[in-house]
Amino acid sequence: MTTPSTYVLVHGAWHTGAELEPTAQHLRAMGHAVHCPTLAGNRPGDDRATTGLEDAAQSLAAYLDQHQLQSVRLVGHSYGGMVISRVADLRPTRLARLVYVNAFVPEPGQCLNDLVPPHYTALFDAIAAQSHGSVMLPFPVWREAFINDGSLALATQAYEKLNAHPYKTFQDPIELSQPMAACAIPKSYVNCVEDTALPQSLGWHPRLSERLGLFRYVECSGSHEVWFTNPQAIAQAIDQAGRD
Amino acid sequence: MTTPSTYVLVHGAWHTGAELEPTAQHLRAMGHAVHCPTLAGNRPGDDRATTGLEDAAQSLAAYLDQHQLQSVRLVGHSYGGMVISRVADLRPTRLARLVYVNAFVPEPGQCLNDLVPPHYTALFDAIAAQSHGSVMLPFPVWREAFINDGSLALATQAYEKLNAHPYKTFQDPIELSQPMAACAIPKSYVNCVEDTALPQSLGWHPRLSERLGLFRYVECSGSHEVWFTNPQAIAQAIDQAGRD
Amino acid sequence: MTTPSTYVLVHGAWHTGAELEPTAQHLRAMGHAVHCPTLAGNRPGDDRATTGLEDAAQSLAAYLDQHQLQSVRLVGHSYGGMVISRVADLRPTRLARLVYVNAFVPEPGQCLNDLVPPHYTALFDAIAAQSHGSVMLPFPVWREAFINDGSLALATQAYEKLNAHPYKTFQDPIELSQPMAACAIPKSYVNCVEDTALPQSLGWHPRLSERLGLFRYVECSGSHEVWFTNPQAIAQAIDQAGRD
Repeated sequence: MTTPSTYVLVHGAWHTGAELEPTAQHLRAMGHAVHCPTLAGNRPGDDRATTGLEDAAQSLAAYLDQHQLQSVRLVGHSYGGMVISRVADLRPTRLARLVYVNAFVPEPGQCLNDLVPPHYTALFDAIAAQSHGSVMLPFPVWREAFINDGSLALATQAYEKLNAHPYKTFQDPIELSQPMAACAIPKSYVNCVEDTALPQSLGWHPRLSERLGLFRYVECSGSHEVWFTNPQAIAQAIDQAGRD
Repeated sequence: MTTPSTYVLVHGAWHTGAELEPTAQHLRAMGHAVHCPTLAGNRPGDDRATTGLEDAAQSLAAYLDQHQLQSVRLVGHSYGGMVISRVADLRPTRLARLVYVNAFVPEPGQCLNDLVPPHYTALFDAIAAQSHGSVMLPFPVWREAFINDGSLALATQAYEKLNAHPYKTFQDPIELSQPMAACAIPKSYVNCVEDTALPQSLGWHPRLSERLGLFRYVECSGSHEVWFTNPQAIAQAIDQAGRD
Repeated sequence: MTTPSTYVLVHGAWHTGAELEPTAQHLRAMGHAVHCPTLAGNRPGDDRATTGLEDAAQSLAAYLDQHQLQSVRLVGHSYGGMVISRVADLRPTRLARLVYVNAFVPEPGQCLNDLVPPHYTALFDAIAAQSHGSVMLPFPVWREAFINDGSLALATQAYEKLNAHPYKTFQDPIELSQPMAACAIPKSYVNCVEDTALPQSLGWHPRLSERLGLFRYVECSGSHEVWFTNPQAIAQAIDQAGRD
């Protein structure tokens, strides 16, 4: 039994907080208070053409303020790693720990596109050019490389919940006062071992995790979309990663 | 419950289809139709000195024809990856998916020996020179690096089922119309995480799996010879890898 | 059920044999005879300023002699890998197998410090300069990178059992008659997959394990300090690694 704590789960690209609710329920059953906000850019009315990374981060900082959250274990998934890294700079005193779940860890001035293979950037560039600056993930990539541990039925249901993502958030360089390795907030990295959303040769761990300096490593079975395929497993991993 | 499908399991070097039968039984219990043919070169009367890679592939293609198989999930283990890659060229319309299980993925014109460490090639060259062109795996290598998760008793029983392998199939360059990454048939890669038949520094995944282009990744516990040590686990992994 | 055998478990830096007792109990329940000696340098009255690697190895060799142990499965954890490598040279006829558990595998003439990242050496140099040649592991490193799978309570309890380690044992070059790959004693490597005591980019497996030549690979869940967090799991892995 871990000490009841406050968790804020920050979704990745194409998602909203609603998709993290099944995982939040498992964490709540352990006694934690859990929030799943949706970032600016992924909400129904948001302008996909103009919303950038700083907008997303400011919306998360504002959420922490509005709910007066303290000692937060701030969990970022995938693109959410960009956002929590920035919020660690914006609201350090509200945070007890940063937890990256197969998430991007930028160096100061990098954008998400700097951290993915060129074939992804080329694919997204082409899609965004035809979609007024928003991008969707093609279903075959989603099904094979993101939710590889799910059935076709689950992969299809989950895909229908996704929303077009503002591409500017992938292109904006992040503003960070220091490398994350120098950030004094304790940090953890959860690695889902079947995650092939990034190729292993340019992957999550150890390539990005080791940018955190001293960090706690936790493994979880499952794919990049374990939120859909095994919310109980990822909740347990987050509990291990997020505790003191 | 996955949709009942047709699976053809293609054994590796030194094996026959019979050694895959325990795994096939687990897949049949899930509702699938499963075939375990033995490739040309590994059958009792086959000439170990002259049977080559194309002979093995043609024997598999002929098997698919004779049984009029359609929408096949074609699963290749180890050396079997060479054979299913060639059959993807020979009988593309019979195949629904290619599933590589710690299997070789060649580029056009490569032979299996191009994909293994030099110390294996040197070992096999020496054995073949003394055995009329066939090779056996020395027991210590088998026990420590192939079936490392089994007891000595199981390792010994399994070794007694192996057959001398026609070395020409390791030396023949494969004929492929295109790199496997360009092949339009859906592809999966199952990685048994304790497999040390290849050293990890020149290993199965991601070195060979990422040659498939877009592919589905599935992990399984166990060694290269999980067919003997945990047929249920590898059957479940194949079911996850082979479904749509 | 494996054949009852004799195991000697050799602790890592900062530990004594007592911390391996819960694991030993699980191995004894399988029928094995298990010894957990404490190496010279880590015993209460030992001189932390002058005890070196050869002293530690000689104390282990003397232990095997005193108890007239034969056909020993000699298990070394972490720094213990240095010690068992030397004992394989000193008492080869007493040993049935060497089992490395996330342990150092030196080349002849290397010291432990040659095998760790420069930031560890710098950290330990600074600590030893202020502590009369002994080193302790700072608690934050222990909690995040060594016992990452434990609760804070367990991490704290376990830390209180550690003892200051004689730094000379990290600096002394090992005397080996041959590379471990050439050593004729059978060898195994157990890899705890959440072990981040070494960064993965300069890690245990395959970097150090593949120095063993032909070896048996066994995976275990858990961190570098699985002796505290999951003694049953590491006992099962050692049983698989240590059997014939």
